[in-house]
Amino acid sequence: MEAATARMIRRLSVKTGFSLPGGPEPDAAKATLVLDCQHAGEAVQSVREDESYHLAVTPQRAHLTAPTPVGVLRGMETFLQLVERDSQGFSVPSVRIDDHPRFPWRGLLIDVARHWIPADVLKRNIDGMAAVKLNVLHLHLSDDQSFRVESRKYPLLQEKGSDGHYFTQAELKDLIAYARDRGIRVVPELDMPAHTTSWFVGYPQYASAPGPYPLDRRLYDLHDPTLDPTREEVYTFLDGLLGEVAGLFPDAYFHVGGDEVTGRHWNANPRIVAFMKDHSMKSDDDLQTYFTLRVRAIAQKHGKQIIIWHKTQTPGIPADVLMDYWGQGAGELADTVRAGNAAIVSSGYYLDLIRSAEFHYRNDPLGDDAASLTPEQQTRVLGGEACAWSEWMTPENIDSRLWPRLAAIAERFWSPQDVRDVDSMYGRLAVVSNHLRSLGLTHVSNYQLMLERLAGTSDVDSLRTLADVLEPVKNGGREQYHYTTLTPLNRLVDAVRPESDTARIFARQVKQGRENQDTIRRQLQVWRDCRKALTPLLMQSVLLHEDVPLAEDLSAVAQSGLEALGYLDAGNPAPQAWWEEQTVLLDLAAKPHAEMLLMIVNPVRTLMEAARRGSW
Amino acid sequence: MEAATARMIRRLSVKTGFSLPGGPEPDAAKATLVLDCQHAGEAVQSVREDESYHLAVTPQRAHLTAPTPVGVLRGMETFLQLVERDSQGFSVPSVRIDDHPRFPWRGLLIDVARHWIPADVLKRNIDGMAAVKLNVLHLHLSDDQSFRVESRKYPLLQEKGSDGHYFTQAELKDLIAYARDRGIRVVPELDMPAHTTSWFVGYPQYASAPGPYPLDRRLYDLHDPTLDPTREEVYTFLDGLLGEVAGLFPDAYFHVGGDEVTGRHWNANPRIVAFMKDHSMKSDDDLQTYFTLRVRAIAQKHGKQIIIWHKTQTPGIPADVLMDYWGQGAGELADTVRAGNAAIVSSGYYLDLIRSAEFHYRNDPLGDDAASLTPEQQTRVLGGEACAWSEWMTPENIDSRLWPRLAAIAERFWSPQDVRDVDSMYGRLAVVSNHLRSLGLTHVSNYQLMLERLAGTSDVDSLRTLADVLEPVKNGGREQYHYTTLTPLNRLVDAVRPESDTARIFARQVKQGRENQDTIRRQLQVWRDCRKALTPLLMQSVLLHEDVPLAEDLSAVAQSGLEALGYLDAGNPAPQAWWEEQTVLLDLAAKPHAEMLLMIVNPVRTLMEAARRGSW
Repeated sequence: MEAATARMIRRLSVKTGFSLPGGPEPDAAKATLVLDCQHAGEAVQSVREDESYHLAVTPQRAHLTAPTPVGVLRGMETFLQLVERDSQGFSVPSVRIDDHPRFPWRGLLIDVARHWIPADVLKRNIDGMAAVKLNVLHLHLSDDQSFRVESRKYPLLQEKGSDGHYFTQAELKDLIAYARDRGIRVVPELDMPAHTTSWFVGYPQYASAPGPYPLDRRLYDLHDPTLDPTREEVYTFLDGLLGEVAGLFPDAYFHVGGDEVTGRHWNANPRIVAFMKDHSMKSDDDLQTYFTLRVRAIAQKHGKQIIIWHKTQTPGIPADVLMDYWGQGAGELADTVRAGNAAIVSSGYYLDLIRSAEFHYRNDPLGDDAASLTPEQQTRVLGGEACAWSEWMTPENIDSRLWPRLAAIAERFWSPQDVRDVDSMYGRLAVVSNHLRSLGLTHVSNYQLMLERLAGTSDVDSLRTLADVLEPVKNGGREQYHYTTLTPLNRLVDAVRPESDTARIFARQVKQGRENQDTIRRQLQVWRDCRKALTPLLMQSVLLHEDVPLAEDLSAVAQSGLEALGYLDAGNPAPQAWWEEQTVLLDLAAKPHAEMLLMIVNPVRTLMEAARRGSW
Repeated sequence: MEAATARMIRRLSVKTGFSLPGGPEPDAAKATLVLDCQHAGEAVQSVREDESYHLAVTPQRAHLTAPTPVGVLRGMETFLQLVERDSQGFSVPSVRIDDHPRFPWRGLLIDVARHWIPADVLKRNIDGMAAVKLNVLHLHLSDDQSFRVESRKYPLLQEKGSDGHYFTQAELKDLIAYARDRGIRVVPELDMPAHTTSWFVGYPQYASAPGPYPLDRRLYDLHDPTLDPTREEVYTFLDGLLGEVAGLFPDAYFHVGGDEVTGRHWNANPRIVAFMKDHSMKSDDDLQTYFTLRVRAIAQKHGKQIIIWHKTQTPGIPADVLMDYWGQGAGELADTVRAGNAAIVSSGYYLDLIRSAEFHYRNDPLGDDAASLTPEQQTRVLGGEACAWSEWMTPENIDSRLWPRLAAIAERFWSPQDVRDVDSMYGRLAVVSNHLRSLGLTHVSNYQLMLERLAGTSDVDSLRTLADVLEPVKNGGREQYHYTTLTPLNRLVDAVRPESDTARIFARQVKQGRENQDTIRRQLQVWRDCRKALTPLLMQSVLLHEDVPLAEDLSAVAQSGLEALGYLDAGNPAPQAWWEEQTVLLDLAAKPHAEMLLMIVNPVRTLMEAARRGSW
C-alpha cells in the first residue's frame, strides 16, 4: 500500500504539476484523498482475491475503499484515469463508482523463449498491465528454441539451451515481487512433452529419439523432439526440475504446456510403441494423457495445480486440471467446461496474429457456444489471456505488438459483457495509449526510432506517411519466410504497427460518406503525392528497397480514390471500363508486399463502388 | 568477451539487417571478423587497466586486437561506429587504427540522492557510457535529502532517509556486474561530514547538533547538519558503515565527499569548540582534516583508497588521497598536483549547469595552469568526470540532461588534446545521438512525450517550434525558486533540451552571412507565424500558461530579424530609432522567463547590428 501510494502520488504530481506531500496527512479528517483498505490481502495473491473497490469523489474529497490492497490498486488506476484537464487546471469529476472485475483471471502470456525478452522489458509491461487492471503474467519460459530459467539442479538447460539469455533465480524473485507489488500474479510455463528441443541440447537422454540435439533456432514448422513418457528417469528429472521452478514461483498454478505433440519420435521408437501396446494405449493421445497425469502428480507433490493447453482429443484429464483454451472449434470450450474442468480462454486473443483491437474486443470469453453454459458452469470460465508469442517480437518492438490493443482485451476481461461500443473503445484506446507512454512503454517512441534507423536519417515524414497505413500480414503469414531466432527483426514490417489508426479513421470517414469529402480528398492527395519524397528515401537505404512497390501502390490507390471522388462530384456513375481497370489495380495492391498490407485499399474500394453507383 | 560479442553481433545485425551467426566461426582462417584478446583482464578492473586496441579492416576481414578484454570492448565500439550505409548496403572502410585513451579515468557522476534514479535508468546510461568509452560510474549515493544504499548494519539510514527509494545490496551487485561487463568501474560516494542530514533522521546521535532531524527535502541552500568529528562512537559507526559499503563495491577507490561544510553546527557546540581548542585546531578546516584522516584510516582498513572533493583551504591531506577537483580558481588544481596528490577534474563538466557541448569540449583537464605542470606531474591528473547533480533531473529527463553533450566530454577525455574542432564535434554529436537512441536512451523520445503531456494533445508542432529554441537557465539559476524533492519536474523547462540545436545552427547561418539569407528569412517567418497556433495551445493547458510570454517574444524577435533583413536587402543602414527600439525589445526577450532562455535573441542581435551597419 505504501509503495503503491508513493507511485500514485508521483504519477499524479507529474501529470498535474501539483507538489504533493511525501507522506500521509496525519489528520484523517483533513485528508482530500482517503485510501481505505479494509483488511490485509492474501499472503500469496490467488485467483480468488477480492479486487473490488468503491470510489466516491465529492467536491470535498476522494474516498477510495476496498476490502484488499489489490482492490485499492485497481481503484487507484481508475482515479488516475479520472483526472481531467481544462485550461484552468486539473479536476476529478464527482462520481460514485462500485467496481469489480467480470473475470478473476485476466492474463497476458509473454513468450520469452522464441525471442529473449529481458526483465526490464517485462517490468515496463507489468506497469502497463497494472494500468489496465490485468492480473496474471503468464511466462512461457521454454520452448524448442530456448530454455530461459536458471536451474541449479540441471544447469545445462540454460547453459546449452539459451544462447546465454535466461532469468537467474534472483531476477525471477525480483520480477515476481515487482509484479506482486502491482497486484499481478506470475504463472510459469514449462511446455512439455513437446516444444522441448532446447532441453535436449544439454540432456539428450530424456528425449524419445537419440541425440545429439543441436539448438534448433527455426521459428517455423512443428518440431518433433519430445520427452520420452515411458521412462522413469524422465519423471525423476521432471520431479527435480518442477520442484525447483515451483519453489521460485509462489503462484498456486503451474502451466505444463502439452500442445502440438507430433508423435513422430514416439512412433519411431520401438520401445515406446511396445510400452503403449503393453499399457493398452490406442493412440498418442492416450500416451500423452498418461504423461499429463504423471506430471500432474509431480506438480501436486510440489503444491501446484497444473494448467495445460486445451486439446480436444485428450481423454481422461481430471477436473482439477485448468484448461487453457486456444482452439477455434465451436463448442469445444463449452464441452470442456460441461465436463467439469475450469478454463481460461486464449483463443481469439493471440496478439501475434496481428488482428485489430476491434476483433479482440468483440471476442468474448463467454461468446459462441459458451453462452449456452449454465450460470454455474460459466463461473468455471475463469477469464482469459492475451498471448504474445514472440516469433516476430523483440525488446524493441514488443511494446508496439502489445499496446494499445491489449488495453481493449483488458477491458473485455474486466468490464460487463454489455460494454461493447467499438467507437467508444477506439476513442478511449487513444487516451490509454498516451497514458501508457507516460509509464515508459515504447510503442510510439520505438516506431519513430526504427523508421529513422531504417532510413538512415531523422527526416522520415514521407516514410511515416507510408508506414502509418501499413500493417504486418495477419494470422502467422510470416511463417512461410522461414525465420530463425538469428534473423534480425529490423525491417519495415517489424516497425509498422499491428493496426493502422490512420487507415481505420479514413475507412470510417469514407463510410460516413459525402460530409467528409474535403477531408478525404486532402488525405488522398497527401498519399498520392508523398511518392516524390518517398521513393528516393526508399532507394537510398538497402533495408527499404523492398518497400518501393508499396510506395507505388499507395500513390496509385490514392489516385484511384481521387478519380472516384471526381465521378462522385460529377454526379454520374463511373464508366464500367474505369471500374474494371481500377479493380485490377486494387486487387494487386491488396496482396502482401514485403510481408505487409496496404490498409487503404478497402476504403478506396468503397469509394469506387460509390462512384460506380454514381452516389455516396 | 562472450557476452560482449553477442551484444555486438546483435547490434550489428539490427543495424544492417544481416543474419549473423549465433556463435564463433570454428575455422579462424575463414572468419571475417577476428577478435583477438591477448590475455585476461584484471580480476577487478583498475584505473591502470590497459584499454588500448588495434583495429585493422581490409577488404578480406576486420581484425581487432587488444591486450585485454576491456581493450576489445573499446575496439568493438569503434568498429560499430565505422559501419556505413549507402544505397546498396553496408560497409566498413579499410582502416588501421591504433587507439588508446589519453586519460585512464573517464567518469560520470550520477547523483541518485537529490532525485531517485533507479537501476534500470542507470543501466541504459551505462550502455551509453560504454558506447562513448567512458569507464567510471561515480554514484553519489547519499546527501542531505536522502540515503540510497541498503545498510544491514544501520537499516534506519535507508528506512528513514530514502522515502523508500534505495538500492538493495542485491541490486548494487547486479548493477556493478552489469557495468563491469561493459568495462566500467563503479565508484561509490558517501558524502561526509556535511551533506548528511538524511543520515541523522535515523541516527541523530552522530550529528553535531541535537536532533530530532526530519527528512529535509530542500534542494537549495547549504544545509548545516554535520557529523560530529570529535566523538569516537562516530568513527565506530563509520567503520561499520564504510566496511559494509566497501564490501559491496569491488573498486579500489571510495569517495568520501568532504565538500561544503558550513561549520555552523560545530561552532555552536561547546564540546566541539573545546575539542578543537584542546587539539590546538585553529579553524574548521583543521577539524575537517582531522576527520578526513580518521576516515582515510578506516577506508584503508577496508582496503580502499579515498577520494575527496578538493578544498583549497584543507591543509595536511596526504598524497595518497585522490582529489576530485571541482573549483574554479586558476592554479588550484596545479598546486594540488604539484604538492603530490593525484587528481581528477570535475570542474567545467557539471552537466546540471546546462552549458553547451562546446563549452565542455573546450574545457581541457590539462588546460589553464595545469598546462604548466611537468609531464610527470601531468600523469597525476588521471582524467575527469562529468557530473549529473540531480536537483532538476528525474528518470524521465535525465537522459536529455546527459546526452548527447556527454559524448563531447567523453571525447575530450579519450582523444588527443589537439582533437578540438568544434564544428566537427557537433557534426559527429548528431550521429552519436542517434546511435545512443538505438541503445534505448530516451533523450529524444521523452522530449516529445513531455511536450505532449504538457499540452494535453499529440498535436504539438507549434509547441515544439518554440521549445526547440529554448534552453533552461544556466549555472544553477533555478536554485532561487526553492524547489524541494517533491516539486514535480514537469514544466516546459524540464522538457526543453540543455542546448538548442536549432538556435545553434541558426546562429551559425547568421554568422556566415548573406549567402544564407533565404534560409534565414524562411526560418524567421516560421517563428514569427507560429504564434497563431501556439498561443491557443498554451492557453488551453494550465501547465503552459507561464510560457505565453516566450511565445510572444519568439514572434517579436523573429519580426525584428525580418525587419533587419529588410534593411539589409535595401542596402541602407537601418535608422537609429528602429535600432534602439529593437534593442529594448531584445534586451527584454533575453531575460529568463519561466526559468528558460530564448536562444534566438543573440543571432537576431547580430542581424540587427548588420542592419545598423547597412551590410552583412
